[in-house]
Amino acid sequence: MSDDMPRPSRRQLLTAALVAGGGMAAGRAMAQGSPDPAITEVQPWRRYLGDGVDARPYGHPSPFESHVVRRNVPWLTADTISSINFTPLHELDGIITPNGLCFERHHGGLAEIDPSAHRLMIHGLADRPLVLTMQDLMRFPRENRVYFLECAANSGMEWAGAQLNGCQYTHGMIHNVMYTGVPLRLLLKEAGVRSSGTWILAEGADASGMTRSIPIEKAMDDVLVAFAMNGEALRPEQGYPLRLVVPGWEGNMWIKWLRRIEVGDQPWYQREETSKYTDLLPSGLARKFTFEMDAKSVITSPSPQAPIQTGPGPVVLTGIAWSGRGTIPRVDVTIDGGITWVKARMSGPSLDKSIHRFYHDFEWDGRPMLLQSRAHDSTGYVQPTKQMLRAIRGENSIYHNNGIQTWAVDEAGRAENVEIS
Amino acid sequence: MSDDMPRPSRRQLLTAALVAGGGMAAGRAMAQGSPDPAITEVQPWRRYLGDGVDARPYGHPSPFESHVVRRNVPWLTADTISSINFTPLHELDGIITPNGLCFERHHGGLAEIDPSAHRLMIHGLADRPLVLTMQDLMRFPRENRVYFLECAANSGMEWAGAQLNGCQYTHGMIHNVMYTGVPLRLLLKEAGVRSSGTWILAEGADASGMTRSIPIEKAMDDVLVAFAMNGEALRPEQGYPLRLVVPGWEGNMWIKWLRRIEVGDQPWYQREETSKYTDLLPSGLARKFTFEMDAKSVITSPSPQAPIQTGPGPVVLTGIAWSGRGTIPRVDVTIDGGITWVKARMSGPSLDKSIHRFYHDFEWDGRPMLLQSRAHDSTGYVQPTKQMLRAIRGENSIYHNNGIQTWAVDEAGRAENVEIS
Repeated sequence: MSDDMPRPSRRQLLTAALVAGGGMAAGRAMAQGSPDPAITEVQPWRRYLGDGVDARPYGHPSPFESHVVRRNVPWLTADTISSINFTPLHELDGIITPNGLCFERHHGGLAEIDPSAHRLMIHGLADRPLVLTMQDLMRFPRENRVYFLECAANSGMEWAGAQLNGCQYTHGMIHNVMYTGVPLRLLLKEAGVRSSGTWILAEGADASGMTRSIPIEKAMDDVLVAFAMNGEALRPEQGYPLRLVVPGWEGNMWIKWLRRIEVGDQPWYQREETSKYTDLLPSGLARKFTFEMDAKSVITSPSPQAPIQTGPGPVVLTGIAWSGRGTIPRVDVTIDGGITWVKARMSGPSLDKSIHRFYHDFEWDGRPMLLQSRAHDSTGYVQPTKQMLRAIRGENSIYHNNGIQTWAVDEAGRAENVEIS
Repeated sequence: MSDDMPRPSRRQLLTAALVAGGGMAAGRAMAQGSPDPAITEVQPWRRYLGDGVDARPYGHPSPFESHVVRRNVPWLTADTISSINFTPLHELDGIITPNGLCFERHHGGLAEIDPSAHRLMIHGLADRPLVLTMQDLMRFPRENRVYFLECAANSGMEWAGAQLNGCQYTHGMIHNVMYTGVPLRLLLKEAGVRSSGTWILAEGADASGMTRSIPIEKAMDDVLVAFAMNGEALRPEQGYPLRLVVPGWEGNMWIKWLRRIEVGDQPWYQREETSKYTDLLPSGLARKFTFEMDAKSVITSPSPQAPIQTGPGPVVLTGIAWSGRGTIPRVDVTIDGGITWVKARMSGPSLDKSIHRFYHDFEWDGRPMLLQSRAHDSTGYVQPTKQMLRAIRGENSIYHNNGIQTWAVDEAGRAENVEIS
């Protein structure tokens, strides 16, 4: 660790406390002989023994964190079984998403699969078609990688202008976990994939029967057949017992409840890659196979669901950035709507195709702000404005909106989703 | 990813399937016209829509994973409120421990603290004593780091010989998560720590009032006052809302429910660093302040709780390794009790003072095996045998046993905790 992080001065903290009635005054009060009973008096949790250990073989969050949950936008999807549950990004920190809070999107409800009855078939242009049990799969070498998964429709409602008031809703179709899985290329080689095989079709075992076509080059490169996330088995809503991991590519391709891989010599043009997940341009033509997720970032706090509650003085601005093409060496931040930009402080491992965490520790003077962040990825790509995107792509699509997000903060610290020209 | 990983040959997989009646036979059967109904018939989860999304604002594991839980050893601790709940290492993979499965050890039950009533006091040899609310703390710059936490008593029962039959019990007092927290040195500087301050005392707010002395050099180096683990708030059993993170040092020092930091000019010699957490030598003298956790490793599968169930053929041997002094560049593995050693394959990020994951993918001939792993850390230290440790430290202590663990595997694939000379 280095000491190059800015540190709030005591004067600034105390000023802030006086303005906001915040707790730093307690420190001063103690020195002046007005002790804070919260530290001088014996609290209930010190007076009585707590629960024993065996009551929690599998732990859960504190009841005081019951507001930290995934949330739906009821009008956004047609019905309850085809729905989205957004990650509460404004409540999280670091780069790992805990399994219980990973956003979920499905099209036929959550499949509850008995792993002993689950099979993965690999067939098509393959000399030795395979049907694998979970036990079979566990005999192949595996790898561990941290990757973000972002839905192509993340921020999709924002194409038409600032709409959803909170980063949970504007950017919450993303999560970032450590996967453990078998490289798909090992299974394809085991099945004797033919040289004429140029595409694969991946199919889910759930009621929606989700299918997507993936080029064989990607399948033979870094795609995993994953069975674990953050150390434990996949969660049911994340495809238990098996899901495809397609690093850096749109989330819809990461087939959950994976049951079948077919090898072919052309894409299948299934529903989810034709009527869905293509990007309709103003010309009437559509961009197809826009697999890679472009570099993107968002400030998660302050944000509409995470206002500044401590008044002027030290503020920790934080957010996340990611790219489907590599790492994020740099994020810029502005608090004045782009008049001045500063380089954010990054903290946490910088991993390929993973979320990165950035901070900007500054003194807020209490005046309104326009907050923005701008990601640079390791290929040199710089996150564009929404205006730049619209100039080329129009507003027909709901997919691949990686434009710069603006939050307007007022004198009271409240934040709102806005757009500035 | 590279292709240097060994890959089970089809012949080997099929042989294994025939011997064990395993699922690989299904792949062959399909080619021969005896389809596996598990793949050819429509399964219930494809036939009916699953649960909708809103039912799970905070997710939980599949009911088919209900065996993956923390477990206690009833006779190991005096009563239920001073107890240990061990991480099920044999069920996990990768390097991240999910929050619900992180081992826990406490001495007065689980404190359920209301964060709005929680305070952190910093006082003693400090010019400007502080009492901080949680909101105050959130105004200081923070960092994200992945660290292992290991209890000094992990493997403690094994000093007297092979005792507990499973790595959950022999090595399960460890977990590895990403912490988010404020560097303690920023808070000490804010409090105006005096140059005469050479030690700190950290105190917990729970009913046991846990206290430990820590040298100021460590406190000013990499110690964090953490409020989040794996992205979300600390779990109650891990010290919600605040815990100390003391990277690489014994877990007992990572004070949970942190309420007070006192700066002094000598250690306090509290109960937990005198009658406990000192290492009694055969001479009658005790090693004290054995803070650093030495390099260590264990094979998590195969192991007594994770036998080989697929018969001879391809086996994925896996385990974890860690060091309180740095990273783990290398782990050696033997399947014949140390006659021949091979370098294990590492997979996953190699981070300072973090768990590392290793694999050995090999063909099992079905004969009995003696499995061992041996960690090398970035300082050049090599994990010793238990015999080497006992020769110097005797068998009085329960702490700091980082000796090499042996699992004996029989012809049926069952594993047992043994010692070999």
